[in-house]
Amino acid sequence: MLKDFVKTDLPDEKEISEKLKEERAKLSSFQMKIKEASLPVMVLFEGWNAAGKGAIIGKVIRNIDPRFFKVATLDREPNEEEKRYPFLYRYMKEIPEAGKFRFFDTCWMEEIVDGVMNGELTDEVYEQRVHSINVIERQLCDNGYLVVKFFFNISKKEQKKRLDALQESKDTSWRVQKEDLLQNKHYEKCQEVYDRYLSDTNQSRAPWYIIDATEKKWAELQVLQFLNQGIDTALKNHSMNVPILQNTFPLKKVGKLSDISLADKTMTDEEYEIELKVLQKELKDLNNKIYRKKIPVIIAYEGWDAAGKGGNIKRITAALDPRDYVVEPIASPEPHEKARHYLWRFWTRLPKTGHITIFDRTWYGRVMVERLEGFCSENDWQRAYNEINEFEKELSDWGAVIIKFWVQIDNETQLQRFTDRQNTPEKQWKITDEDWRNREKWDQYETAIDEMIAKTSTEFAPWYILESVDKKYARIKALRIVIEQLKAALNR
Amino acid sequence: MLKDFVKTDLPDEKEISEKLKEERAKLSSFQMKIKEASLPVMVLFEGWNAAGKGAIIGKVIRNIDPRFFKVATLDREPNEEEKRYPFLYRYMKEIPEAGKFRFFDTCWMEEIVDGVMNGELTDEVYEQRVHSINVIERQLCDNGYLVVKFFFNISKKEQKKRLDALQESKDTSWRVQKEDLLQNKHYEKCQEVYDRYLSDTNQSRAPWYIIDATEKKWAELQVLQFLNQGIDTALKNHSMNVPILQNTFPLKKVGKLSDISLADKTMTDEEYEIELKVLQKELKDLNNKIYRKKIPVIIAYEGWDAAGKGGNIKRITAALDPRDYVVEPIASPEPHEKARHYLWRFWTRLPKTGHITIFDRTWYGRVMVERLEGFCSENDWQRAYNEINEFEKELSDWGAVIIKFWVQIDNETQLQRFTDRQNTPEKQWKITDEDWRNREKWDQYETAIDEMIAKTSTEFAPWYILESVDKKYARIKALRIVIEQLKAALNR
Repeated sequence: MLKDFVKTDLPDEKEISEKLKEERAKLSSFQMKIKEASLPVMVLFEGWNAAGKGAIIGKVIRNIDPRFFKVATLDREPNEEEKRYPFLYRYMKEIPEAGKFRFFDTCWMEEIVDGVMNGELTDEVYEQRVHSINVIERQLCDNGYLVVKFFFNISKKEQKKRLDALQESKDTSWRVQKEDLLQNKHYEKCQEVYDRYLSDTNQSRAPWYIIDATEKKWAELQVLQFLNQGIDTALKNHSMNVPILQNTFPLKKVGKLSDISLADKTMTDEEYEIELKVLQKELKDLNNKIYRKKIPVIIAYEGWDAAGKGGNIKRITAALDPRDYVVEPIASPEPHEKARHYLWRFWTRLPKTGHITIFDRTWYGRVMVERLEGFCSENDWQRAYNEINEFEKELSDWGAVIIKFWVQIDNETQLQRFTDRQNTPEKQWKITDEDWRNREKWDQYETAIDEMIAKTSTEFAPWYILESVDKKYARIKALRIVIEQLKAALNR
Repeated sequence: MLKDFVKTDLPDEKEISEKLKEERAKLSSFQMKIKEASLPVMVLFEGWNAAGKGAIIGKVIRNIDPRFFKVATLDREPNEEEKRYPFLYRYMKEIPEAGKFRFFDTCWMEEIVDGVMNGELTDEVYEQRVHSINVIERQLCDNGYLVVKFFFNISKKEQKKRLDALQESKDTSWRVQKEDLLQNKHYEKCQEVYDRYLSDTNQSRAPWYIIDATEKKWAELQVLQFLNQGIDTALKNHSMNVPILQNTFPLKKVGKLSDISLADKTMTDEEYEIELKVLQKELKDLNNKIYRKKIPVIIAYEGWDAAGKGGNIKRITAALDPRDYVVEPIASPEPHEKARHYLWRFWTRLPKTGHITIFDRTWYGRVMVERLEGFCSENDWQRAYNEINEFEKELSDWGAVIIKFWVQIDNETQLQRFTDRQNTPEKQWKITDEDWRNREKWDQYETAIDEMIAKTSTEFAPWYILESVDKKYARIKALRIVIEQLKAALNR
């Protein structure tokens, strides 16, 4: 794309000035419309060093009230802490909330291209990264984000000229880094890598705009025009439905909830006590090992109200070092969470390598409560199966162990436990009116859960059913599965 | 404290077991009471390496539902990113929200003692740190936090024995670090430093509990007993008023708002345009310099509605590199913010060194809107003047430049601007019913603002009045003050 990039003839100065005025006013008038439409706008600035990205961001934001934008400065290597998360993590943390702009002074492109240039990224990993980026950009668009991507282009000569000028003055010479000079030296090679990345990630919903950045005002005008055009289109399309992608992940065949036999899944107190001790001891040792091998572990619990998730989780955590794990109880999203991609609050709660995060309720809320209560559109939750598989695939490729438990009881057992909770003062806090209301929708939930399990039982992140009419049985089964999965991960 | 620490005789095993059962149940039953009382509970675990802090935390949390606690593992050196913030920052980020526990697996003590032991902390800095810690612990308590501090004590011999045992097994030898062995070697010296810190921070509201950690169950019992006792007391005291401390910070003499003359504070458009260019150019250069000298800058804007804060801020930011600054518009707190110390949302928004944060409305909301609307108690806002001075002193000692602007207009000017906003379609979003309601309380606000400015115009963080009936005048004045203050900081 870069080599063949045909520069438009520069309009004359007067024309640029006039149009600039127009586009600036347009952007300024868009900010309230964006807010009203709850449109989140992500603007990615990538491109050659010294191409003037920062300066243009500075110009663009002058037209926007500080309440409606932030600049994310990520033009640096990830630090040690960030390296312990998936590479998308530090970018995902920064995605804007509905109704606001976020300008990225370099985003995921720069990290990838740097990696290729300094030889740290193999071809295989490069392909994987590009795939991840395409997936996440598409997901963001599908979930209502406007993603606008700019590549700031200057020639080798122009770059050289700018670096020389910066170096000449004492006040600016410190801004020129070794990497900048290296990039100029290896301009052609770097252009190839940029080019490859641009073609690899040029999606119709989030296309690249190459900005001729030789002349500042002209660059500003191009950016404003493309940005305004993008906003205009997005505002018009805002409530459009999105095609549901085919779910092409390798799925395991699973049965329906109604086929699960529960009555026979029991064990005696004696068996339980003995097993529990042995398994917890084993899990404790494995906890040490995965900590040292820096394997991240995600354990996701879903299940009927009163199925015994809490007690089950406790039997796992009792074996773990409290410095290595965290339990994340998931309730309805807070306003700042609801204003972002629905997976954002899970992206930001991921464990770092060597650590374990146990989710008590999860991102599957999207296809259960949000579906049934109408908290998202039908198009939203129908899309979510694939989006969730993509999310889990990303984590799995990162190296995470993902264990998903569905804690199963039957309708009568729930009634019994609800009644018991209601009648026991110390347990009353555990039961709310909402629980009773949800209970009335048992059948609808069962349909949704069957669909969910069928569509998201991937080979890399399968569901495990924990039969929990006898809670002891469910706890031992959970421990066994966690142990088995951690062992498998250690042997990989 | 440690040398003279008299161990209580160990109760016999049976007694310990019985009492443990009792105290565990007690803690368990407390969790809902804590939630109902919205009590935030901070439990600090400090002490000798290998004293078993982690293991006991593991035992304690077994009694609590994961919804109500988290463990913060901070037993490590601050990383490069964290070093660019005040030393309290990484701990403050982790304070619990109302109704929840947060267990700190080492908190600010360890960092200080390490610093002294390896010679990185001068006596002067040590004294400063201890002062900061005492201030923040008191502030937390005053604002309704329960702070419980445990020091895990073992003898030199016992520590040696444990480290040897860990080293003997392949599975655990990696847990023994060089620092652990060094600590044992220099046990006596380290005991002195621990001891000094313990006496220096032994406050009546947040006292130290020294735990004899030789025997595990006994250690657990002591921890549970002290913790439960603390919770019991806190629950009883929860709505108690707190003594208002004397404000002993060096204050500048300042006049009242009504004494400020506004009509004569004007400038022509021509003067303005010329000055603006010159000053923005100068500020741009200074931005570079403070970035390179790694000075953090905090600019706080308060002022009447429609006084022109937004436009004023824009004239500052127009001169700044968008990668180096952020504007933080402050609205009413979100639920997760309201659930914590009222300064938390500002602690977590501090600039890192070399960066600038501009607050559009600030922590002074506590003594204006929260005071007048009754969002906090009288005791709360009366205490806040001193707490805010302490907060700003901490930031100033860290090296931050703090510039506080009060943007002043008169009552008639506000009415004019409100009406103008109402009548101009593009400006209507800027005016809400709330603005009109606030306007009715002008006199009450004026009294509160006069008091605020009088009580918080410290020498290290004074207020500057921006006379803004002529917005041009106010903008130029703001630029001049920022420039002057940055220059002063660069010359320090």
